[in-house]
Amino acid sequence: MIDVKGYAALTAQSPLAPFTFSRREVGRQDVLIAIRYCGICHSDVHQARDEWGGSLFPMVPGHEIVGTVEKVGASVKQFKVGQMVGVGCFVDSCRTCPQCKKGLEQYCEGHLTFTYNSKERDGVTPTYGGYSTKVVVDQRYLVRIPKRLRPEEAAPLLCAGITTYSPLRYWKVGKKHRLAVVGLGGLGHMAVKIGKALGAHVTVLSHSDKKRLDAKRLGAKDFYKTSDPDTFTTLSKQFDFILDTVSAPHDLNAHLELLKTDGTMILVGVPDKPAQLGAFPLILKRRRLVGSLIGGIQETQDMLDFCAKHRIGADVEVVSIQQVNEAYDRLVRGDVRYRFVIDMSSLT
Amino acid sequence: MIDVKGYAALTAQSPLAPFTFSRREVGRQDVLIAIRYCGICHSDVHQARDEWGGSLFPMVPGHEIVGTVEKVGASVKQFKVGQMVGVGCFVDSCRTCPQCKKGLEQYCEGHLTFTYNSKERDGVTPTYGGYSTKVVVDQRYLVRIPKRLRPEEAAPLLCAGITTYSPLRYWKVGKKHRLAVVGLGGLGHMAVKIGKALGAHVTVLSHSDKKRLDAKRLGAKDFYKTSDPDTFTTLSKQFDFILDTVSAPHDLNAHLELLKTDGTMILVGVPDKPAQLGAFPLILKRRRLVGSLIGGIQETQDMLDFCAKHRIGADVEVVSIQQVNEAYDRLVRGDVRYRFVIDMSSLT
Repeated sequence: MIDVKGYAALTAQSPLAPFTFSRREVGRQDVLIAIRYCGICHSDVHQARDEWGGSLFPMVPGHEIVGTVEKVGASVKQFKVGQMVGVGCFVDSCRTCPQCKKGLEQYCEGHLTFTYNSKERDGVTPTYGGYSTKVVVDQRYLVRIPKRLRPEEAAPLLCAGITTYSPLRYWKVGKKHRLAVVGLGGLGHMAVKIGKALGAHVTVLSHSDKKRLDAKRLGAKDFYKTSDPDTFTTLSKQFDFILDTVSAPHDLNAHLELLKTDGTMILVGVPDKPAQLGAFPLILKRRRLVGSLIGGIQETQDMLDFCAKHRIGADVEVVSIQQVNEAYDRLVRGDVRYRFVIDMSSLT
Repeated sequence: MIDVKGYAALTAQSPLAPFTFSRREVGRQDVLIAIRYCGICHSDVHQARDEWGGSLFPMVPGHEIVGTVEKVGASVKQFKVGQMVGVGCFVDSCRTCPQCKKGLEQYCEGHLTFTYNSKERDGVTPTYGGYSTKVVVDQRYLVRIPKRLRPEEAAPLLCAGITTYSPLRYWKVGKKHRLAVVGLGGLGHMAVKIGKALGAHVTVLSHSDKKRLDAKRLGAKDFYKTSDPDTFTTLSKQFDFILDTVSAPHDLNAHLELLKTDGTMILVGVPDKPAQLGAFPLILKRRRLVGSLIGGIQETQDMLDFCAKHRIGADVEVVSIQQVNEAYDRLVRGDVRYRFVIDMSSLT
């Protein structure tokens, strides 16, 4: 076994604290990674505080992992020692269901093993995430980090990047499309960058005026605040696509009315309460309300290559592991532009 | 002006009663139709009783109209005296917007003139529907009734038929697809017939067991009752498409869970209250919830030709105009299999 240092929540009420544990030995298909950076995703907070229920403790969060290869198993051909690699939201799947065979491992119909707060395929061994010094991952669930991306800016791409890239590609968002991004947080700021790179005309819809300048800097052509009712009149039937990243309750019907006929609203955020949905906003203009979950491994690699080509990284604030609890509190207050990333060299 | 006899609601509280009014003279593009049959759509009841608000009185309902051409205007080339023709939910649209130009008049971005309870493009002249002896309609909003269809069975195709046909074609439902039809009423029974003709494996989901035999006779392979919670376990992730025709409040989330990954649920019924929608059923399997509204004129013609080819008509109960109020009450109770059609020869 490989000894690893990390930070863990021991209960839903505990702050994260130093925690020592073991990783499995490097198998034939495995890669041992020395973690350099790990992003802090809002879902880390939800799970560490058991806000979605069913959390497993002790929990070492973190699924936006970038590090260097330290050792490879005998059958590993794709990765070499010293190479910069990434690990996202899951580290295994059944590999045999139709979704896995299509490269849509995130929709695996068998057992999807999440990077943390999950069990390995044996149903017993818990998984521990990237707030730690090392991780052992099967090569099939690893991606290359292109050299043109700085590792700390690449880490959030493994969740926030792919979560927004995947639906924008699936729905073929591009030139001639007007795209509204609802919410300018970790997901939203990536959606603006990627939407712009895909050639779409991007409008940011944000609750207040505070992020107006940021939106423009990130690549949005327009900015409207949703706290102003006039916004919903002015923008009525204006968009081909809306990417909704907000995980607080909000009015889906009012947002749907901003879509043209045959327009598509994509949900990637999960409010903690169901929304009220009327049938008319969908029926009267043949609109679509759809969901999307992260992305598959090959698609994650495509996203990283796309971001490298377009020089897109996340806007990050690098913190030490000792600052993680403070970062959680600031994240919950929305006080981050736009992603905290932990420098794992602080964990020694 | 052309004198016409009809049945009208004079107020939201009045039963329908005899009513005499005038139609415009036959213009160059117009066709005068002697109405033979008119279907009774649930929306007739909603509007005559002002249950959706904004109803215009006196109201002559009816938008499932079949009749014979009695006279044509000087520029009418497509229709001849004596021919059997149909009129659906609208009789005019702006003709210039992108949707009209694409043959999607039902999504007209200008002024869509409904067949009744609406105003002509002048914004003043009320429209009166098919519970009447004659109607004058611009040839561009007329369709041919194929000879292989009996006129009384064709009438409901103009609304119930096209409302279900349009989304099934738009979403390319066909062989290899498993289609669930939710609700077996006027819309649902057409969805079963059309879905079967398109080659889909059709399952009917109905509240009770009462229509099990009918569902099979109409072409469904399977039948499940939604009042049994086991149905939602048994059918979890089984369908490529769900066509939801129910206009009473029901659990959208539970139905969405019956879709496979990338499955599509199509709403064509409008409950009078918003539904509760969670984000997870959409996100976790990249599902889609979409709406659809009737269909365009060319598509309505295509639907009629398709139904003629496959010998599909509505299952109807023919009533006299004198029975219309009783028919309304029975319709509200769900006591019709599956569409009332008024024999307009009873109106003399």
